[in-house]
Amino acid sequence: MPSSAKAKGARPPAPAVSYKLTIAYDGTDFLGWQRQPEGRTIQGELEKAVERLAGRRTAVHGAGRTDAGVHAAGQVASFSAALRLDDETLLRALNAQLPRAIRVLAADRVPPDFHARRSARGKVYQYRIALGRLVSPFDLRFVHHHPRPLNAARMRRAARLFVREADFGAFSSNRERNPVRRVTRSELRKKGDELTYTIEAAGFLRYMVRAIVGTLIEVGRGKLDVAGVERLFRESRRTLASPTAPARGLCLLRVDYARNIKSMAKASSRGLV
Amino acid sequence: MPSSAKAKGARPPAPAVSYKLTIAYDGTDFLGWQRQPEGRTIQGELEKAVERLAGRRTAVHGAGRTDAGVHAAGQVASFSAALRLDDETLLRALNAQLPRAIRVLAADRVPPDFHARRSARGKVYQYRIALGRLVSPFDLRFVHHHPRPLNAARMRRAARLFVREADFGAFSSNRERNPVRRVTRSELRKKGDELTYTIEAAGFLRYMVRAIVGTLIEVGRGKLDVAGVERLFRESRRTLASPTAPARGLCLLRVDYARNIKSMAKASSRGLV
Repeated sequence: MPSSAKAKGARPPAPAVSYKLTIAYDGTDFLGWQRQPEGRTIQGELEKAVERLAGRRTAVHGAGRTDAGVHAAGQVASFSAALRLDDETLLRALNAQLPRAIRVLAADRVPPDFHARRSARGKVYQYRIALGRLVSPFDLRFVHHHPRPLNAARMRRAARLFVREADFGAFSSNRERNPVRRVTRSELRKKGDELTYTIEAAGFLRYMVRAIVGTLIEVGRGKLDVAGVERLFRESRRTLASPTAPARGLCLLRVDYARNIKSMAKASSRGLV
Repeated sequence: MPSSAKAKGARPPAPAVSYKLTIAYDGTDFLGWQRQPEGRTIQGELEKAVERLAGRRTAVHGAGRTDAGVHAAGQVASFSAALRLDDETLLRALNAQLPRAIRVLAADRVPPDFHARRSARGKVYQYRIALGRLVSPFDLRFVHHHPRPLNAARMRRAARLFVREADFGAFSSNRERNPVRRVTRSELRKKGDELTYTIEAAGFLRYMVRAIVGTLIEVGRGKLDVAGVERLFRESRRTLASPTAPARGLCLLRVDYARNIKSMAKASSRGLV
């Protein structure tokens, strides 16, 4: 009789509980969010950590599948596991297992139907562009350096064009079945030698933020105008669009959920603890 | 006739000019300032870059020999070379050669007797301690994480004890011929969950700042009091002192020179250009 079956027979498993993790990471040294057969990924590291605590392989679902080199200040992930740990101990134990470049900021119990991606109402991404002659070594992992002049006023006006529900196919490298997305915020700010672009939407196509930023940079360089951006929307073909901006400048700032998730989670946690 | 002798005969070398470089670096991935036979160092990378521009091996002298993992926001280095480049081109060319984690912020011509270390009047170091439960992944290369409580008020008072001219032998791992140093500023500030320690002196012993920070942490933990710190000064033996704080929290903020260096440099540069 295999020992795992014996163990199962000897002790009934603890009930599985669903958790919502809020996570920050410096994505520089990872191959992105998604688990890969080879190489370090954020999901892979989280699943290894959860497996060590839960004693079995456990899928960890992320709200956004950030690409290689992209960072997060507030990624959200969910998983279900039978853990005999209180939430504070879980948080510590996960961080003790994880590389220092990935930190779990919060671990909350959620209702069993909570899913980091499917339950998400919206996501906010931020992209940083450093315009100065030099990038500080303390910032270099987190900004895209564009040492040539950009017309920020033109870029700011163009950024507003992206607030719409439309076919964003021109701003994704993949052909997606449904390329329609609704962007609710798209704004560019300049502070000193740095541009910060913030975009909010219920969902994004792959490479969409970096493709939009690449387009805004073309606008800033004077290579593209408002009519050109509108043409991209009409044609909906990536081949016509601008280069995708590098991963390092991009950060998943926040994922939003329905307001009642927290109270549901609390109720659920009261029931379970 | 060897070709170098022929070249020398054919074209007289340009006159050597002395340069002062102001440099910032993320020291995490380097073995420290000082050139080593194996492995990447800041000095080694700078000397390689200068050699490529000058066409010959050129010594680059640093104001402070920062240890492995220590950072700099305003390190200063000097070298003399016969370069046929204007200063702006020199700055660009150096940064183009250097790894992105090392940036030359300024390149200024200085009088031939300027030497980054020997001409320095004073140096300012800063040490960051993160007290919270978690360190942000965006900060982790630059702070020492101390997740247990520290009494900041006691540490602040103890920090003031280091403003003196005294034998700092207890705060260096090396036995130095002359362990007397004059510290002119030593202060600790708390902002949110972070402590920042700033120390200024004409010169430092090896590991001195990190040994002092280690001592302040012991004070913050209640393991050492004012009398204990005074005893360290009297006994002047490193063996009695506290653990050396980790390199990652330390940054060489600034090196100060006599005020007239700049005007001297300008005069010199006017004469030479």
